[in-house]
Amino acid sequence: MSDPITFAKENQGRYLDELKAFLRIPSVSTQPQHDGDTAVAAQWFADALTEAGMENVRLIKTPKHPLVYADWLHAGADAPTVLIYGHYDVQPAEPFDLWETPPFEPTVKDDYLYARGAADDKGQVYIHVKAVEAYLQTNGRLPINVKFIVEGEEESGGASLSAFIPQNKELLAADIALVSDTAILSPNQPAIVYGLRGMCYVLMDLTGPGRDLHSGSFGGGINNPLNVLGHIIAGLKDEQGHVLIPGFYDRVRPLSDEERALLAQLPLDESAWLAETGAPEAWGEPDYTLVERLGARPTLDVHGIIGGYTGPGGKTVLPSTVHAKISMRLVPDQNPAEIRQLFEEYVRSLVPPSIKVTFQSGHGAPASITDYHIPAMQAARVAYKEAFGKEPVLMREGGSIPVVGEFQQHLGIETVLMGFGLPTDKIHAPNERYYLPNFYRGIKTSIRFLAEYGKK
Amino acid sequence: MSDPITFAKENQGRYLDELKAFLRIPSVSTQPQHDGDTAVAAQWFADALTEAGMENVRLIKTPKHPLVYADWLHAGADAPTVLIYGHYDVQPAEPFDLWETPPFEPTVKDDYLYARGAADDKGQVYIHVKAVEAYLQTNGRLPINVKFIVEGEEESGGASLSAFIPQNKELLAADIALVSDTAILSPNQPAIVYGLRGMCYVLMDLTGPGRDLHSGSFGGGINNPLNVLGHIIAGLKDEQGHVLIPGFYDRVRPLSDEERALLAQLPLDESAWLAETGAPEAWGEPDYTLVERLGARPTLDVHGIIGGYTGPGGKTVLPSTVHAKISMRLVPDQNPAEIRQLFEEYVRSLVPPSIKVTFQSGHGAPASITDYHIPAMQAARVAYKEAFGKEPVLMREGGSIPVVGEFQQHLGIETVLMGFGLPTDKIHAPNERYYLPNFYRGIKTSIRFLAEYGKK
Repeated sequence: MSDPITFAKENQGRYLDELKAFLRIPSVSTQPQHDGDTAVAAQWFADALTEAGMENVRLIKTPKHPLVYADWLHAGADAPTVLIYGHYDVQPAEPFDLWETPPFEPTVKDDYLYARGAADDKGQVYIHVKAVEAYLQTNGRLPINVKFIVEGEEESGGASLSAFIPQNKELLAADIALVSDTAILSPNQPAIVYGLRGMCYVLMDLTGPGRDLHSGSFGGGINNPLNVLGHIIAGLKDEQGHVLIPGFYDRVRPLSDEERALLAQLPLDESAWLAETGAPEAWGEPDYTLVERLGARPTLDVHGIIGGYTGPGGKTVLPSTVHAKISMRLVPDQNPAEIRQLFEEYVRSLVPPSIKVTFQSGHGAPASITDYHIPAMQAARVAYKEAFGKEPVLMREGGSIPVVGEFQQHLGIETVLMGFGLPTDKIHAPNERYYLPNFYRGIKTSIRFLAEYGKK
Repeated sequence: MSDPITFAKENQGRYLDELKAFLRIPSVSTQPQHDGDTAVAAQWFADALTEAGMENVRLIKTPKHPLVYADWLHAGADAPTVLIYGHYDVQPAEPFDLWETPPFEPTVKDDYLYARGAADDKGQVYIHVKAVEAYLQTNGRLPINVKFIVEGEEESGGASLSAFIPQNKELLAADIALVSDTAILSPNQPAIVYGLRGMCYVLMDLTGPGRDLHSGSFGGGINNPLNVLGHIIAGLKDEQGHVLIPGFYDRVRPLSDEERALLAQLPLDESAWLAETGAPEAWGEPDYTLVERLGARPTLDVHGIIGGYTGPGGKTVLPSTVHAKISMRLVPDQNPAEIRQLFEEYVRSLVPPSIKVTFQSGHGAPASITDYHIPAMQAARVAYKEAFGKEPVLMREGGSIPVVGEFQQHLGIETVLMGFGLPTDKIHAPNERYYLPNFYRGIKTSIRFLAEYGKK
C-alpha cells in the first residue's frame, strides 16, 4: 500500500477530471434560475465525500441552498478535531461576452484551469476531499478527526449557515477550523492569511418623478435621481479614498507598529501587481501602504449602477428610479449593523426632499483576525513549507469570509486560512482561473497539515 | 362643395384611422434594428402627402433615414410661402414593461390616443397634411404656397437634414417655417412658443482597471470608475441646479425685465403640473421661477448610467468600464460646440490619473427665439383663437428643435411653433399619448392659419 502523498501524486489526472465535472455545474447561488444547478452541485459534493470514505455524509435542508456535512471521527479521544469549511456555490458569470472560454466548460490552457468557481472556491475546497481520500485509501484512517461543513450561499450572504451554526454547536464542535478560500502571494510564495475584512453591502434605490420625464419639458424644474446619486457617491468617499460617513472610522482598531512592520515585509511586487489589474496606476489613502490599504483598511465601493436610458444612442430622459449597489469592506472592530445604520442615516441626510431613497440590506459580516502563534497555525506553516519548498509569509486579506467570525463567536474556535488561489485568478470576474500546480501542492499541503496537527 | 373646415369635421373618423396606421410603424431612428420600419414610415408619409393632393412628392436619400419633400406652389407670386416641418421618427419605447398598452398598437381611451409618437411628432405633423387636403379637396387650391420637409432623424441628432438645408436653400426657400412639435399649456389654453432651448449631448466612458476586479482583493488599492463618476456628476452641477462648468453661463443672454414679466403671466397651475410629474416637489435654481427654469434657463442632466454588476442580488466587483449619457439644455446665446469643449475640458480636469475618460459626441443645437410681432405669428394667434376659442399665450419651451436654428441660419426665416401637444402627453416616456380633441382643433387651426397668413 502506498503512502497518501504518493497516492495523491499518482491520481492527479483523475482529480482534475473530477474537479472539471464539479465546475460544469453552474451553481450560481444569487440567481434563482440556477437554483436547480445549485442543488445538483450540493449532491455532487456529498457524493464525492462518500467516495472519499467520509462518514455520516448528508445534505441539510435550509430555506435556500442545502449544507453538506460529513465526518470521520475515529482518530481517538486525544486527537484534535478539524472542521473543514468551503462553499460549492459560485459568483454570477456575467458579463458572458468577456469570457474567452465558456465559464461552465472548464478549459485547461498552459498550467491554468479556466472556469467560474475554479479558484473560488470549488478548486480549493476539493483539495481537502482528495487529501482525506488519499489517507483513507492508503492508511485506512486519518491522523486526526475531521468534519466537513460546506455551504451553497457564500456568494449570496450565507444566511442559512449563519443560522445553522449557533443551533448546531455540538455537531460542528472542533478544535480548529480550516478554510481554503484565499490566495497566496505568488505560485512559489505560500502565505497564511491571519486577517480578513468584513462586509456591509447595501442596495439603494432613488426615485424622483413618478415616471420617466422628457428632460426638455421638465429639466430645470424636477430633480434628477441620477444627478442626486452622483452627489451621494461623492459625499460617501473623498477622491483620496477616505470614507466620509460620520463615525465610520470610530471603531477601527489602529494598526500597531509591530503589525505594520510585519506587513511591510510582504514581498509584493507592486508593478507586477499593477500590470495584472490593467489599471493606469495604484490608488488609495495616502497615509497607508498598498498592502495596508488592500487588507487592513476599510473601503467603500460602488459595484453597480443602472438608471435611465442605457441602450444605444441618446435619449433625453429624466429617469424615475435608479439603482445602486454599494459595499463597505470592514476591519476590526467595525460592527456591520452599526455601519449599515451610519450609512443609511448619512445618505438620508444627503437626499433632498425632491427625491425618495429606499434601502435593501445585502450581507453583513464582521472582520476577523486569527492569532498566528497557535499550534494549528504552526502545523500549517510546516505543511506549506514542505509542499511548496518555501516558508509561508503572514498576511491580511482584503476579502470577506463571514463564517470565520461566526466560528469564532459560536464555536469558540480560530480558523486557519490555508489558501491556494493566486491574486491573478480573476475571481468574481470573467476568465476566472486556477493555477493547477497549486491544486496538486494543495492536496499535499492538506495531507501534511493533517499529519502535523496530529502531532501537536 | 363644402368648405375646408366642414370637410375636416366630416372626416375626423378617417383621419384617426390614418393616424393609427402611421403610429403602428415603429420608426425608432436611433435603433438600427428599426431601420427598415423607419424607411416604411417615410414612404407612408410620402404617400399620405400625394393622397392629400400635394405635388412633387419625393423621398430624398440621405446617409441614414430619407427626407420627405412635397410642395404646392400655385397660390401666385404675391402669396407667401410656408415651409412645414415635422418628423416621422420616434423615440425608443423602452422600458416596454411600463406601457399599459403596446407602444406600437395605438389605443384610444377616453379622449386620448396612446402610442409612441402619438404626440411627438406623428400626430402633430399629420395635422398639416389633413389641413392641406381639406383645402385641396374643397377649394381645389391653397390660399398660400406650401412646402413640406419632414425628416426621420429628429430623435437621433438630425444630421441628414442639417446637411441638406444649407445645400438646398432654393428648394426650401420660404417666408416662414411652421413647426408643430411642441405643447400648449392645457387642453383649453393654446400657446405659441417663441423660444426653444438648444442641446449639447455627450456620451462618456470611464475606465479604471483593465477588467472587472474583486473588490475584496483590490478594493482600497485600485480606483473605481463608478465612484469617480459620482465625483464628476457632483462636480458638474450643484444641488441647487447651478451648473459648475467654468464658463458655462458666460454667453447666457440675461432675461430682460419685460420678458420675465411676460413669462410671469403664464397661467401655469404649479400643483397640477407637479401632480402630473409624480415627483415629491418642484426643484431648481432658487433665483428663477418655475416657468423660467423650464424654458429660459440652461440645465445639465444625466440621462443614463450603466456600469458594474446590475443583475439581481449583489456582486462585489470593481468595474472596468462604466458609461454615462449627459446632456445640457442651452439658451441663447450659448454655443453648443463651445459648451461641449468646456464640458470635456472640465471633466478631464476632474478625472484622476488612475482613471481614463473618453467622450463621444451626441447631437448639438443652438437655442432659438422668434420675434412674436411678425405677421405669421399674428396669423397663428388668430387661428388658435378661432379654433380653441381662447387667445393663445406666449411662452418659451424647454425642449430642443435644432432645425429651427438651422432655418434661421441658412434660409433666413423665422419659425412659428404651432404646438398641439400637452405637458401631460408623456412624450419620450412610457404611455405617450395625444389628446384627440387637439388633433381635430389642430387641423382647424392649420386651415385657419393658411387663410389668415394669406391675407397678410
